This record gives sequence, structure tokens and C-alpha cells, in this order.
Amino acid sequence: MSLRTAWAYDGVVKPEQAPGSLIQRKQLRARQRIVDAADELFALHGYDAVSVTDIAARAEVGRTTFFRYFGDKTEVVFAKEQALLDTIAQASADDTVGAARDCREAVEQLRPTVLRLCGQVAEDPDAYERHADLVEKHLELRARDALKTQQLASNLSEVLRSRGTSQTIAVFAAQIALACYETARRRARTAADLVSESSAAFDEVLTLGSG
Amino acid sequence: MSLRTAWAYDGVVKPEQAPGSLIQRKQLRARQRIVDAADELFALHGYDAVSVTDIAARAEVGRTTFFRYFGDKTEVVFAKEQALLDTIAQASADDTVGAARDCREAVEQLRPTVLRLCGQVAEDPDAYERHADLVEKHLELRARDALKTQQLASNLSEVLRSRGTSQTIAVFAAQIALACYETARRRARTAADLVSESSAAFDEVLTLGSG
Repeated sequence: MSLRTAWAYDGVVKPEQAPGSLIQRKQLRARQRIVDAADELFALHGYDAVSVTDIAARAEVGRTTFFRYFGDKTEVVFAKEQALLDTIAQASADDTVGAARDCREAVEQLRPTVLRLCGQVAEDPDAYERHADLVEKHLELRARDALKTQQLASNLSEVLRSRGTSQTIAVFAAQIALACYETARRRARTAADLVSESSAAFDEVLTLGSG
Repeated sequence: MSLRTAWAYDGVVKPEQAPGSLIQRKQLRARQRIVDAADELFALHGYDAVSVTDIAARAEVGRTTFFRYFGDKTEVVFAKEQALLDTIAQASADDTVGAARDCREAVEQLRPTVLRLCGQVAEDPDAYERHADLVEKHLELRARDALKTQQLASNLSEVLRSRGTSQTIAVFAAQIALACYETARRRARTAADLVSESSAAFDEVLTLGSG
């Protein structure tokens, strides 16, 4: 399963024109207008009171355009997830790293990627807090968030597999890396702490057996 | 947050009469009839084609009774989760175990509970396979499954907290224990392998630093 396939369950067409082309820039602007419109409307009226039609109207696009970029209203809330998956895909493209020989090496290989993810998530601290608050308040969003997070683990596992690491080791290391990420999300008091908390969790897990 | 509060987000009344009382036995029978009816209807017509009304009718209960036990159709699919949470709650009730002094001890304290969870999940292998197939095929169910699994971690963390373990250690150990559980769910070829795969994952995590 390729990284793209793994993520494409929502059947949504992502901008796929040549990077920087006029069409692609137009697509990215439309997508961003939808995200901004949703953010504003959720803040004004609450998540439940806002419909896809409302969002499309405020973004000045049709419903068809909305559904070209997002599978449903829930997906707009997780608009930044694709950037996280792209970061993981970049790790796959790095062919200077070989197969991990054991679990420890596999976990260490995933560490820099998870720290990059934390850095990305924390880039806009206000947006991070707003997102976290919104998700926390809605069962449907918490469920989708939990699924997205498992998707990160699945793609992290694919990174190791693409380097020739065994499935047995890859699955374990990805879940451990995810555990460090989740620990950081729970321990961090602010977005700014995410990277250091994640790094601390990796330190702890990599010294578990040496105590 | 008590274990009960943590789980009660779906606002569902669980059977709460004195154990073994006539009323409680009647409640449990009604709940089980709903679960069996849903299983049969999902197998016959597929999950999407079956409504709460259909399930209630086949179980010979009213819709009100259905919603007394389950928040929505999705919840019936996860009817066994409460038993898992009860197992975790039992660990909390065991007052012979004290606060964990470090991450390693905390992970080791959670190990027997996670193995018990795996044993419970694997009790009826056919039901396990049917459940796994159904969840895999539906985005909504996969999302709810991911959320339920995070709930297990949250309650495992509360077990450690109730023994006086620090929040910092408890959060980390619960996520690591969950990673072992998730690794086992992915590595196990059949339900029968769940316990041994989970045990192997704990062995691996507890020797990560000694390589």
C-alpha cells in the first residue's frame, strides 16, 4: 500500500497539478479559502451549527468545489493533516537510510520525523489551541482525530518498510513512535512544548530497559 | 476524572441495579438481545443498510430501550468495550500495588492488565474476526475504534494515577502499553495469537534500551 493510497480513503482529489502552476496555485487558494471560512464560521456559530453549504458560501465556492478538496465537514477541521503525511512521505524519499536491524534502530529512525511533525503542528500556536479545543468538545472530531493519528503510525510503519525493515519491527516501532507523539500531546502545556516533550518521551522509551 | 466519567461521554445508562437482581438480569438480557439482533442484521444486510429501528424490532424492544443501552448504532458494534473497561477498573481496585517509581515500573504494572484485555478480546475468535472485518470496512467504525482504544489508554493511565503514580509517568506508560496492544492487534494472525503477541511486544519495549 503506497502512502498516497493509505491516505486516500476519503476519496478526495488533492491539488495535483505541477507545483507552482497557475492551476495549482488557484486550487491551493480555493482550498485555503475554504479552511479559513470554516475556521471563522466555527468560531462564530459553533461547529454543529455550521453546514458545508455555509462554508462554501462564505468561501465563495460551490459545494462541488468543497467536496473536491474535503470528504465532509469533519475533514476541514483536519486540513493540515495532509502536510503531516507529506512530511512522513519525505522521510520515505530519503534513500540514505537503510533497513533497521532491530526495534531500537527502527524507533531511532522514526524519531527525527516525529519531532518534525511536532514542529509542524506547533508552528501556529493559536491555531493549535483552537484546533485542540474544537476537537476536544466533539465526539465525532475526537474519533476522527484518533483515526488520523493511527494513520500517521501506519505511514510511519510504511517508511520503515520502504527501507527494507521487516513488517514485525516496523509495526512495533511505528506504534512506539506514535506513543511518544501522543505522550507529548498530553504532557505539553502549550504548543511550544510539543517538540521537547516528544524528544523527552523518545529518551524515556529508549532507556526503558537500562534501568 | 473517574473511570466512569471518562467513559460516560455517550450519555448512556448502563445496567446499574444490584448485581444479580431480577431487574439487572432483565436489563442484561435486553442488552444482549440488542447486540445479537444487530450482529445478525449486519451479517444479513450489511452495516449501512440496517437502522436502529430494524435492530430494536428484531430484538423485540422499543427504540427508547435501545437508546437506554447504546448512544447510537455505532456503539452496538463496540458493545464489548464496557467489559474491557471493567477489567481495567478491577486493576484500579487492587490496592496491593503501590505507586510506580519510574516509567519502567509503570509499564510493567500495566502489562498484566493489557494481557487480560487481549485474552478477553480473543475469547470468542469468530466474533473477533467478524468484528475486525466490520470495523475495517467502515470509516466511521474505524474512527470510533481508534477513539475507544485511546479511551483504554486513558483509563490505564488512571489506574496508575489511582495508585499515586505521577501524571507524567502515568501518561507515558499508558501510551506505551497501548502501543504494545496495538502492535499485537496488527501482528496477530488470529485471535488466538493476541496474548502471546502482546506479551512479546512488552518484552521488546522493556529491553529497548539494553541493546
